[in-house]
Amino acid sequence: MTAWTNRDTDAFAELLTGYCLDVQPGQQVLVRSTTLAAPLLSPLQRTILAREAWPLLRVDLPGEDEAFFALARDAQLDGFPSIARAEAEQADAFLTIQAPENTRGLADVDPARLARVTRARAPLSELRLARRWCGTLWPTPAGAQQAGMGSERFAAFVRGALLLDRDDPAAAWRALGAFQAELIAGPLADAREVRIEAEGTDLTLSVAGRTWANSDGRRNMPSGEVFTSPVETSANGVIRFTVPSSPRGVLVEDVTLSFRGGEVVDAHAARGQDYLDRTLATDDGARRLGELGIGTNRGITQPIGAILFDEKIGGTVHLALGRSYPETGGLNESAVHWDLICDLRAGGRLTVDGTVVQQDGELR
Amino acid sequence: MTAWTNRDTDAFAELLTGYCLDVQPGQQVLVRSTTLAAPLLSPLQRTILAREAWPLLRVDLPGEDEAFFALARDAQLDGFPSIARAEAEQADAFLTIQAPENTRGLADVDPARLARVTRARAPLSELRLARRWCGTLWPTPAGAQQAGMGSERFAAFVRGALLLDRDDPAAAWRALGAFQAELIAGPLADAREVRIEAEGTDLTLSVAGRTWANSDGRRNMPSGEVFTSPVETSANGVIRFTVPSSPRGVLVEDVTLSFRGGEVVDAHAARGQDYLDRTLATDDGARRLGELGIGTNRGITQPIGAILFDEKIGGTVHLALGRSYPETGGLNESAVHWDLICDLRAGGRLTVDGTVVQQDGELR
Repeated sequence: MTAWTNRDTDAFAELLTGYCLDVQPGQQVLVRSTTLAAPLLSPLQRTILAREAWPLLRVDLPGEDEAFFALARDAQLDGFPSIARAEAEQADAFLTIQAPENTRGLADVDPARLARVTRARAPLSELRLARRWCGTLWPTPAGAQQAGMGSERFAAFVRGALLLDRDDPAAAWRALGAFQAELIAGPLADAREVRIEAEGTDLTLSVAGRTWANSDGRRNMPSGEVFTSPVETSANGVIRFTVPSSPRGVLVEDVTLSFRGGEVVDAHAARGQDYLDRTLATDDGARRLGELGIGTNRGITQPIGAILFDEKIGGTVHLALGRSYPETGGLNESAVHWDLICDLRAGGRLTVDGTVVQQDGELR
Repeated sequence: MTAWTNRDTDAFAELLTGYCLDVQPGQQVLVRSTTLAAPLLSPLQRTILAREAWPLLRVDLPGEDEAFFALARDAQLDGFPSIARAEAEQADAFLTIQAPENTRGLADVDPARLARVTRARAPLSELRLARRWCGTLWPTPAGAQQAGMGSERFAAFVRGALLLDRDDPAAAWRALGAFQAELIAGPLADAREVRIEAEGTDLTLSVAGRTWANSDGRRNMPSGEVFTSPVETSANGVIRFTVPSSPRGVLVEDVTLSFRGGEVVDAHAARGQDYLDRTLATDDGARRLGELGIGTNRGITQPIGAILFDEKIGGTVHLALGRSYPETGGLNESAVHWDLICDLRAGGRLTVDGTVVQQDGELR
């Protein structure tokens, strides 16, 4: 992709191993991606070696996960190999790079099979989350197709979202982190009631006593959001999510949720109603909110169908059904964590304790 | 490559997981190769899953090992990550598939760096060799180039060497194993003195008290050889190895070695003299023989520059400088194990205790 020069790719690798993971000598760095990310994986190997650490590349073949879900037997769905635990226990840092050959690769997999694997491997996730970790994306043709762009423009778009077009990307991320810290220390400090208004949307919820997290690109690259966990019983009203969502490769569009006492009491999707209904029925926590996030990344100007990017769009807010982040004070438990995005840029408002914090997508 | 049908590739995967590794439910099967072997890796994943085992694919990017040797610092040359030990300890079976992008990829690496890595990782090799393991080759364009063939003909050649052109490849390998067992129980039983004669070659050595191993394709695929360890002080005479050798990617041609009392006293190579000299100087064991092998695979009719194949050519014998196989009674220790091949087909003779066992490449 000529939109990326080798210098861009080297800068990306440097950003990931430096700013995001802060790789130290002797560390074991587990890098998971697909063969399509090879142009990034090579400089990653080099920069990790240069940091006198161990690059452990785990490169999936395109379709490898699809084949697994198609063919796995019970013991394979409900367990994991001991070597996977050893990796999760002994690695010092985990880097996951989305680089799909087909963003709909898992769309036909029975969600129950996906859920079994997620449940069985939860101990591995916990081990990973307790270490240094980062998730990012490499622009593939499938990603471009999902975004509705040519591969060239998509690559340029991703570069912009990653702030790789800045002279010093790490400094740009630090600056965004500082901006978000001011947001948390300023208008969001001691926030109690949040109200979201837009066409078809008027929702209130409480964040009283909850902590706001500053997502500054160390764990999600790109990032650019602040988020917290709403009080689980507090959501009331209706919200319409106009940005399409692709959980596990399934396309779900134009979701409207009505809440009473924190719980979803009505749910409608223009597309993907069945997936929506089944997801809400997963467990009790799936009908309550686990996250409220505010996107701040001005480099991400339009949705591309990858939640890593879409939830960071400057001028949007997102809510997640299901599991909350304990570090923000959230108590909701669920096998589900589904981010849904409400775009406020075309006429919307975010109000905190009666003060407008964001109007038509612009932070005040 | 149209010389291989999907059916051939499926049969190859079945041969490897069935006949070679005998994969059992619950086992962790570590498969190491490069992305170029993807057409084989996918059916391998499927067949390992179908056996209710865990396929753990470790897919190197082309050039990954080259980059490692170019960039590794001391700690990386002389150590290994703990996760590599966990893998070696916990995997039940190891499959290594040569699938190079460039068979000369390591030709420019300082042999001392290669030796440090081999030495540092010896504990991992020992762990692997104590389990079920197999080494094989996938036909890549680089492999074809090395063989001096077009990719189509090379793929067909490899298929023939693997006996995948037979109705039941596993049965064909069992038959070859039975043939070799007869060789060991017959003309080689209680063998004492072996004499190798050909143009420029007249070497005698003792195998008294040593055991012959039957290499029937379970550990090397393809195989087709019987081998033992000569008595370390016994080799006398001269031998000319007319088949080119490519240890670690370095081309060495037309090697002539003179032995006295088991030790190399004169060594000449038409090409690669420097590599030859340096290898002989590695340690004391490098100047003595660690293996005598007799190739029996009639599907391998010409050298291709990959020792896995070349040493199995029906009608050849090979000797290895350096480390011997303890299971055959060998006592020679060395960091070196370098197989060199003497072709007897154009006029040569293998005599055991005065009886001609092979004449002009044909077993009697």
